[in-house]
Amino acid sequence: MTPLRSWRELEPGRRFDFGTIALGQEAIIAYAREFDPQPFHTDPVAALDAPLFGGLVASGLHTMGACFGRIMGSGLFAQVSLGGSRIDTRWPNALRPDEEFSLEGEVLAAEAHRKRPGMGVVTMRYTGTRLADGAVVISMEGTQFLRE
Amino acid sequence: MTPLRSWRELEPGRRFDFGTIALGQEAIIAYAREFDPQPFHTDPVAALDAPLFGGLVASGLHTMGACFGRIMGSGLFAQVSLGGSRIDTRWPNALRPDEEFSLEGEVLAAEAHRKRPGMGVVTMRYTGTRLADGAVVISMEGTQFLRE
Repeated sequence: MTPLRSWRELEPGRRFDFGTIALGQEAIIAYAREFDPQPFHTDPVAALDAPLFGGLVASGLHTMGACFGRIMGSGLFAQVSLGGSRIDTRWPNALRPDEEFSLEGEVLAAEAHRKRPGMGVVTMRYTGTRLADGAVVISMEGTQFLRE
Repeated sequence: MTPLRSWRELEPGRRFDFGTIALGQEAIIAYAREFDPQPFHTDPVAALDAPLFGGLVASGLHTMGACFGRIMGSGLFAQVSLGGSRIDTRWPNALRPDEEFSLEGEVLAAEAHRKRPGMGVVTMRYTGTRLADGAVVISMEGTQFLRE
C-alpha cells in the first residue's frame, strides 16, 4: 500500500481496502487461551453448548488484533503513525474459524491537533464484512495521531 | 475469585479487584510483531525517536488482551458468560515494559435482556491504574451478556 506522507492526505470519506482475513481454529484457540479464555473460544466441543454461538467463535480481541496487524502491516501509516488513544469496537456478528472477511477503512474526520503543532488527529472507521453473507463481524472507530 | 452464579448478582457500583499486571519487553515485542507492528511497539532503539513516547510502549491491544486474559482467567464470569458485543477502550497514558498496573472492574449497569429471557446485559468498566503514579493506562467499557 502506498504509505501516507502526512495526515493532511486524509480527507473524510476516503476509503482504503485492506484485503481479506480469516482466522483458523488453531490460531483462535491459541489466542484465546492467553487473552480471552472462555470455552466458546478455546474448546470446540464445549462451544457447541454456547447459547449465543453454538460452536467455536474467534475472540473479538483476536479479530481486532488481526485487523490491526493487517492495517499496520500494510505500511499505509508507517511513515506517519504516532500512536492512538481510543478504539470503540463492536462485534455485531460472531466470526467462526476459516470464515473470510474483507477489511476496509474509512476516514471519518481529520484535523490538526489543537495543542501539538505538526500533529493531526484522525478518526477512522474500520469495518470487517464476512464475504459469505455480507454480515459485519467487526466495526472499530479509532482515534489516531499522525504526523504532518 | 468466587464465580458469579447469575447476572442478577451484579448491581451497579459493585467492584472487583483483578490484581496487578505487568508486560515484559519481550512479550510486548512478540505481541506487536503479529498484531500491531509499529516501531514504538517492536523496536526499543527506533522507539527512542517516537515523538509521543520516547521509548518502547505496549500495544494498546496487548494491554487490553492481558486484562481480558486476567478477567476471564479469574473465573468470575466462568459460569455465566455468554459473550460480548462492544468494548470502548481508551489508553490515556502509555504503558512501558515492566510497569505494574492494578486492574479493577466496576458494574455500571445490569438489566434483563429485552428479547432473550434468562439473559442479562451488563455494562462493566475496567480500569488499569499504574502503581507508580496512579495514571490510568487503560479504561474499557464493555457490554457483556450473562446467564440468569
